[in-house]
Amino acid sequence: MNNVVLIGFMGSGKSSVGQLLAQRLKRAFIDLDERIVADAGRPVSRIFAEEGEGAFRARESRCLLRALTERGRLIAVGGGAPLPDRNWEAIRQGNCVVGLLADRDELVRRLEGSTHRPLLEPDLRTAVDTLLPSRTSRYLQADLLVDTAGRSCDAVAAHIADRLPLEGLDRISVEIPGSEHEVILGSRLAPLLGPMLRRAGSAGGVVVVTDEVVGAAHGDAVSAALDESGLSPHIHFLPRGEEAKQLPVLTKLYAELSARGIDRAGALVALGGGTVGDVTGFAAATWLRGIPYVQMPTTLLAMVDSSIGGKTGINLPTGKNLVGAVYQPAAVLCDLDHLRTLSEADYRSALAEVIKAAIVADPPLFQWLAEMRNGILNREPALVGEVVRRSVAIKARIVAADPGDRGSRAILNYGHTVGHALERTMGYGTLRHGEAVAWGMQVAGRLSLLSGLCSPDTVQAQASLLAAYGLLDRKPRVSGTDLLAAMRHDKKSRQGEPRWVLLRDLGKPEFGVPVQRDHVESAIDGVLA
Amino acid sequence: MNNVVLIGFMGSGKSSVGQLLAQRLKRAFIDLDERIVADAGRPVSRIFAEEGEGAFRARESRCLLRALTERGRLIAVGGGAPLPDRNWEAIRQGNCVVGLLADRDELVRRLEGSTHRPLLEPDLRTAVDTLLPSRTSRYLQADLLVDTAGRSCDAVAAHIADRLPLEGLDRISVEIPGSEHEVILGSRLAPLLGPMLRRAGSAGGVVVVTDEVVGAAHGDAVSAALDESGLSPHIHFLPRGEEAKQLPVLTKLYAELSARGIDRAGALVALGGGTVGDVTGFAAATWLRGIPYVQMPTTLLAMVDSSIGGKTGINLPTGKNLVGAVYQPAAVLCDLDHLRTLSEADYRSALAEVIKAAIVADPPLFQWLAEMRNGILNREPALVGEVVRRSVAIKARIVAADPGDRGSRAILNYGHTVGHALERTMGYGTLRHGEAVAWGMQVAGRLSLLSGLCSPDTVQAQASLLAAYGLLDRKPRVSGTDLLAAMRHDKKSRQGEPRWVLLRDLGKPEFGVPVQRDHVESAIDGVLA
Repeated sequence: MNNVVLIGFMGSGKSSVGQLLAQRLKRAFIDLDERIVADAGRPVSRIFAEEGEGAFRARESRCLLRALTERGRLIAVGGGAPLPDRNWEAIRQGNCVVGLLADRDELVRRLEGSTHRPLLEPDLRTAVDTLLPSRTSRYLQADLLVDTAGRSCDAVAAHIADRLPLEGLDRISVEIPGSEHEVILGSRLAPLLGPMLRRAGSAGGVVVVTDEVVGAAHGDAVSAALDESGLSPHIHFLPRGEEAKQLPVLTKLYAELSARGIDRAGALVALGGGTVGDVTGFAAATWLRGIPYVQMPTTLLAMVDSSIGGKTGINLPTGKNLVGAVYQPAAVLCDLDHLRTLSEADYRSALAEVIKAAIVADPPLFQWLAEMRNGILNREPALVGEVVRRSVAIKARIVAADPGDRGSRAILNYGHTVGHALERTMGYGTLRHGEAVAWGMQVAGRLSLLSGLCSPDTVQAQASLLAAYGLLDRKPRVSGTDLLAAMRHDKKSRQGEPRWVLLRDLGKPEFGVPVQRDHVESAIDGVLA
Repeated sequence: MNNVVLIGFMGSGKSSVGQLLAQRLKRAFIDLDERIVADAGRPVSRIFAEEGEGAFRARESRCLLRALTERGRLIAVGGGAPLPDRNWEAIRQGNCVVGLLADRDELVRRLEGSTHRPLLEPDLRTAVDTLLPSRTSRYLQADLLVDTAGRSCDAVAAHIADRLPLEGLDRISVEIPGSEHEVILGSRLAPLLGPMLRRAGSAGGVVVVTDEVVGAAHGDAVSAALDESGLSPHIHFLPRGEEAKQLPVLTKLYAELSARGIDRAGALVALGGGTVGDVTGFAAATWLRGIPYVQMPTTLLAMVDSSIGGKTGINLPTGKNLVGAVYQPAAVLCDLDHLRTLSEADYRSALAEVIKAAIVADPPLFQWLAEMRNGILNREPALVGEVVRRSVAIKARIVAADPGDRGSRAILNYGHTVGHALERTMGYGTLRHGEAVAWGMQVAGRLSLLSGLCSPDTVQAQASLLAAYGLLDRKPRVSGTDLLAAMRHDKKSRQGEPRWVLLRDLGKPEFGVPVQRDHVESAIDGVLA
């Protein structure tokens, strides 16, 4: 596991809490100030006196970056160390950051009589009042926040130990101008929600949207975490599955937001699979013309696909996702713990989207999926984590290049023109989404071949991997005519003509290629007849 | 009236059509090529031969810019003249641009045997094929487009004369990154819709949303114009007024879009007042996660306020505009003709928003409104146009500085904290919106004074102007307690506390100022008791 880094003002208890927490976590403890002293061969006060603050900061940054190259440590860093952006980025990279907070008077009380702190001279109160505000704004960016006032160091250590993510954190940035946010991967992530929502501007009134099953499993942990952050959470239940994505269900959610007085200081949390994320995201996009929301996907499909990119929406009786918005979340929290209860069928179905991402954008991932098949199908935790991480990274990259879903993002639709039509024709739920997409990719692959775009080897490689993951076990029985009719209703259609994503090679998709109608028909026949 | 400028490829008929059209419009005709020849003292072919194309283009630009300083002319410009961006901006500025189109074979036929065109040598077909595509993409940016194929020059001239805006065009840019668009002011603007929607990406399937009254007055003109552009329009009627802004009404509109097969090549047109614009804009924002729409406001209030800035939304039984989106239109067409049928009461009520805009952002407009009161209340067309133009310019500037409505745009809410609460308390429709805002500004002004922000002179100036426009004739009877309770529900509230826009002086608003509760109470008492 990666490092845990403690930050906070002088006197917030980093060293004392750090030692106790290190024992609890069975981690080696690094007090960064001690490293600096060892490096310089003299105490901090002498470094300041003899070299000046600039030189101290340079030593501090050097020691910090060196300490962060170690793994599995608990590192307490000096009050000023997280301030330079370069230090801050290094502190966050792969690590969990815990901020210890205390109010001004408490800090002054604790620091009275301390003699070895050059920044607090000559007058303690003036020094604290000068330094505290700007430093606090950095500390509030920590993943976990603990108010230390009135608590013993041991109580603070116990509090943190109970809330720390279990396996470190991975962060993947989604670089959308004006809507930059992170996807965070780890285990036991609920305690990160509160600080995250506060950073997004929430001051209170958070509605956690979920369904009965997910809510029963994870609702309490999420609620408790938000409660601790003073965000007055309330849980709202949607019907399970596609049933949730209806106007009357959305209307009820709006009524709840109204009844709870959710204003622009409020926020939503989508705790569940793709349907929960779609409805919650759309409600967040449209409530008071947009309030913040966080995606907490609990299925593999939602983690690797639907929770990233801000596509939200509901269905109408006449079609899926006809009403919606592109609206980015403030953050996506992928808690891998949540996957433990995921059914085998849902897990496998989601792997179709992982394979799709590899096919259109990441040939090395395609190879890796072939090599690691057994471990991935056995759901070895490290491999599952890697599957999520790599898929999220692909999707984040593609989405950032086309945030409004107006162009290049369409390559993610590979396999979906026929996939959606299969689901539509056979009735939703007959085939799993992943199977429908797998067969859709087979048709798109064959069509790419017939259109002279790709080689038979590419089509064969795709078929082998899909088959290896059991995604082609059940061949759908459907009439070609019905399928063609259904495809004309695709959301990506223009003037009734579906727009295809085809393949030149693995990692080389192409969108909007004109195709011959007879090629479409023979691709469908060839794959599905 | 400003100039009309004819653009098009060589052989599209600019000179011949231009002369006939000039007679019809009783305008002086300028053939730019003749001006260039006169300027150079020799024919175009000799300028090319002796000075080269670069020198010709420089002469052309100079003659063009000079001709455009004249007023009320019909100007036909050479095929290459609109290409440089600087020329193009000058051509559009305040003028109406008409593009004459013809397909390649037709152009070749017309140009065969012509000898004085140096760009077409040595081979006519090759020259046309080389020049036509890039030039056509400029011509398609004209306000009006006419296909000249198979029509006599006189028929083309008659066609244009019947469709040209009657009083020239004013264009005001709304500079929102990624959503730049224009507000166009003029008379008889429906014929501009088709080319505008095509530029926004529409290829067919346009639903014009309106109400029975507005639809009866203007629906046919809009439909006919869209039909001519091949955009298959369909008219959808909403209930009139605030009744339209309900979920069931929106649901019906979605059903219509579904039934008409509106895909991403489709578009919506909001033809009506603020409620039509709000519902249509929200439907456009959410249909297939966003399709283009054009605002055609038909009331003064919609022109100066609600159609600009992309605020869209519907009401819930529990409050106004609780569900919505910020979604910019592709364009706003303010057809001043539509104001002729506006009721006196609606006209006056809208002037409250004009006065508000002047108070928060344009002290010279405030003075002008005071000086021109009689003419404005008598609805003198030139003054009404000026009112719209100046109000739109203010709103466009404020909106562009805060497109997402997250900060500075809030100054437009001056008078609305109490205004909305008055409407809510007394029942919508009891007071006109403008009156409610006028009384709201009176309370906000008094509160600014009590909070020590502004001088009594400022409050007095505001009161005089509002009274001069008859906006304070009816004092609302309402209990202060009810009003305070209603204010807590304001959409701009955070954690139940309304956030005030106050005034330091005319043109110097301030948002989010903390106020003392007893000051709020005495401001309400002082103004309304």
